Formats: sequence, C-alpha cells, structure tokens
Amino acid sequence: MSEAEQPVTACLIIIGNEILSGRTVDANLPYIAQKLGAIGIRMMEVRVVADDEAAIVEAVNACRARYTYVFTTGGIGPTHDDITAASVAKAFGRRYGRHPEAERRLLAYYPPERVNPARMKMADMPEGAELIDNPVSVAPGFRIENVHVLPGVPKIMQAMLDGLLPRLKGGAKVRSRAITVFAPEGDVANAGLGEIQARFSNIEIGSYPFWRPEGPGTTIVFRGTDPGAIDQAAESLLGLAAQLGAQTREDPTREDPIGGTPPGR
Amino acid sequence: MSEAEQPVTACLIIIGNEILSGRTVDANLPYIAQKLGAIGIRMMEVRVVADDEAAIVEAVNACRARYTYVFTTGGIGPTHDDITAASVAKAFGRRYGRHPEAERRLLAYYPPERVNPARMKMADMPEGAELIDNPVSVAPGFRIENVHVLPGVPKIMQAMLDGLLPRLKGGAKVRSRAITVFAPEGDVANAGLGEIQARFSNIEIGSYPFWRPEGPGTTIVFRGTDPGAIDQAAESLLGLAAQLGAQTREDPTREDPIGGTPPGR
Repeated sequence: MSEAEQPVTACLIIIGNEILSGRTVDANLPYIAQKLGAIGIRMMEVRVVADDEAAIVEAVNACRARYTYVFTTGGIGPTHDDITAASVAKAFGRRYGRHPEAERRLLAYYPPERVNPARMKMADMPEGAELIDNPVSVAPGFRIENVHVLPGVPKIMQAMLDGLLPRLKGGAKVRSRAITVFAPEGDVANAGLGEIQARFSNIEIGSYPFWRPEGPGTTIVFRGTDPGAIDQAAESLLGLAAQLGAQTREDPTREDPIGGTPPGR
Repeated sequence: MSEAEQPVTACLIIIGNEILSGRTVDANLPYIAQKLGAIGIRMMEVRVVADDEAAIVEAVNACRARYTYVFTTGGIGPTHDDITAASVAKAFGRRYGRHPEAERRLLAYYPPERVNPARMKMADMPEGAELIDNPVSVAPGFRIENVHVLPGVPKIMQAMLDGLLPRLKGGAKVRSRAITVFAPEGDVANAGLGEIQARFSNIEIGSYPFWRPEGPGTTIVFRGTDPGAIDQAAESLLGLAAQLGAQTREDPTREDPIGGTPPGR
C-alpha cells in the first residue's frame, strides 16, 4: 500500500452529561462524519463520555494514539462543568493557563462590562495549543498535536469545523451509492448479497431493512474509494433484485455532505 | 456507602458503519438512557463502533468489565454485515451456534417458503445466551452475563428494551429539575453557579446556553438522587437570577421518559 493509500482515520469524543442522560440529542456526529468523509477522512469510532476529568483523559489518550485525527465536542464554555480544556491539558501532561491571543480576542469582543473571570476562563488552554477560529462567538477552540477541541453548540461547532477542514490532510475520497430493493432483507441476503460482498472485498456493503405500509424493503449501501468496484457491485445487486422479481430504486446519497454557509458574526 | 447506594451503571455500544458515516442518525441512545435513568441505572459511556469483529470484541470486553450493564444495538439481522452475535461470542470465548428456542420461534413465525439460511442465521448465538423477547418481528436478542444484545431498528429495539426493563435491577432513582435563566451563560457563571455546585456536591449541575431571537439564556439542569438537595440548589439559582435581575422559567424535564406503547405484532 503506497503512502497515499494509507487510510486517514478519525475519532469523535462527545463530552457531556446531557448527551449521556438522553436529555439532549447529539447533532454533531452526523455533521462531522459527513464533512470528514467528503475529504477522505474516515470516522472509525465515537465515544460519549461524562463531564468527568478521568473519563475525558482516558478517552483522549486512547483515541489520539490510535487515529489520525481526534475531535472533541463540548465542555469549553464559561461554567464550572466546562472542564474539557483542563482535562485535555492533563491528558497531554501540559500546563493549563491563559492563552494570550485567545485572551486578546475575548477582550476585543466583549464590552468591558461583560468581561468577567468566568468568560475569560474560555482563554485558558493547554500550553502550546494552536487556536481554532470561532467566526460565530469568538471564543476559540484549539488543537494540540492531532486533537481538535471544539464546542458542543452545533451552529458554532459547524462554523469552526468548516474553517478547520482546509488544514486537515484527507485520504482517498470515500464514495457511496445506495440502492433500495423492494424485498425483505432476509430474501436479499439469501439471494446472494454476502457473495457480492465477498467478490468486492475492497468496498463495504451495508444492508438496512425498513417496513413501510406499502411493504418491506432493504436499502443497500456501497461504500469505498474505488468507484468502479462500487458500480460493479451495484450492477450485481440489480441482477440479484431482477432474479427476485423485486423493484429497485437508486437512492440519493450524501456525497455532498450537509451543506449550508457558516453563520455570520 | 451501603449496598443500596452503590451506583448502578450502564454503557451502550452502538454497532454500525451507517452511524459512523453519518448516513443514519442514532435514535436509540436517548431512548435507552432515559428508560434506564427512570429506574436508577446511569448511562456512563457510549461507544459507536464499526461492523468489525475486532472493534466489537474490544468494546464489549472493555465495557462489560467496567459497568453494571452493557447494551449493544445493531448488527443482529440476516445479512453478511450482521456480525454482532458472532463477535460477542468471541468476546466471551464461547462457541457460536444455533439456539434451539430461537430456531423454534423463527420456524413458527415464518411461513415455510420464507425460511432460508439467511433468516435462520438470526438464531445463531453464543452458547448459553438467554433470549430477549422480540414482540415485533420475533427474531430475539440475547443476554450473556451483563451484556444485552439488541437490534438497531428503533421500533423493535424499544419494544425489546421495554420487555427487558423489569428484569434489570436499578439503583436510586435519578431525578432532575431544569430552570432557564434569561441571562447569558457567562453572567450566570460569574454570579456564582460554580459556588452552588460546590455547596451541593452530591448533585450535578449542568449549564446549557442558547441564543434565541429574543435574546440569550441559559438552561441549568440539576440531577441527582437527593430531591431535597436538588430543590435547595434550584432555590439558590433562583436567588442568583434575582441578583442578576433576570427572569426565570421552570422547564419540563423528562422524568417520565419517552412514553408510548410497544408496537404490536
């Protein structure tokens, strides 16, 4: 495998009691996974951990050793439960303190009467952190080595990630194609879907059943970096569906990930 | 700490490439977390892993050693990418093969012309697995020791979890109260929210900012097993809001988790 073909991988660490309790539904994983996928960075694992220093340190250290890129969301605001920056400093064994440029940006943004110690805590980071710009609400995220620390609020996270993407080095673009077969999953499986997977081992074939009032069906998703193999495997599936006498439909995929312009200041 | 006060913990392992790629948005975490929370079982960690044996084995073994209960969702259907049962067998070092009662249920459910090897694979499990009933589509989940293997399709997963809940041993019920303060988070923090947390260390206080057209605000969530402490901390917050001259509003919480009747056959 040449260097260019080395897979570029990512892990997302979602930090927040509100996600674990079920009170808040995470909206960041799909956005990040699709944006990274579009530039050939493959999401391999996600962990959701509590607002707990030991849990954050362990997750950061386990994941940064294993994946090309690590992203964290959540826990970088002004309150007592925002402990991500201090915990990441601990994970790296670095000192935690005021970042001069982050401080400068916050002081330039807030009118003097709104400057207070809680807000200025958002300028405290691990030593040597490189800022990630926040075009929405100024308080920056940061990068240390391969770990990127982002906020949890989706609109702000999205704008910051969008600005960060050009600085990431992607791999071969992952393409996908989705075909729905209007037949039950057990029939599609039995007709030879596994054999198609075995023949095209360099792509992944996922199978997702559904039951709608008009009847059951199965959406088959082909994913990989070789468009020719994807199309050949898809042709094989269409042949399999014809054998079953089942109708098919090409489904939209999300090759163009969630769009939209970053919100302005 | 008496035995009754030992925290009862859980971890959810979401298995599926479609969640990692961002194509499918997980809907099971909030449902499971809230249902477990209502019987005093605390979700401590969630991992999303690929349809990959090594990844599943590692996550199952890491989590089952650490938490009271482990739940997995996804990967127990009839297709080649459904490898959860075989992977869990490997994690436990158990043989993987046909479960007679699961086989009996599938044969009783499917008309003979629909019985095929792909569907019957749904009766293959680790040796010694105890079935988890599926009132929707019959193919059962299973339990081994503290690991509960459930499907990924939300309607089916929900019905199976609901049937399983009476067999789980919960701990002290976690209660919560949420109050919105119509003031920016940095002001709420600076007015002494951290001091309230320090005074009531047996509860957790989470702070979640929002920005709406009418202005910014902060929702403060109090969670814990001591209702008296929650109410005292909430009173302190109301005092803090009064000092800020900010309006407040008691928010609905989800003590009664997502309701609804399991779908029928």
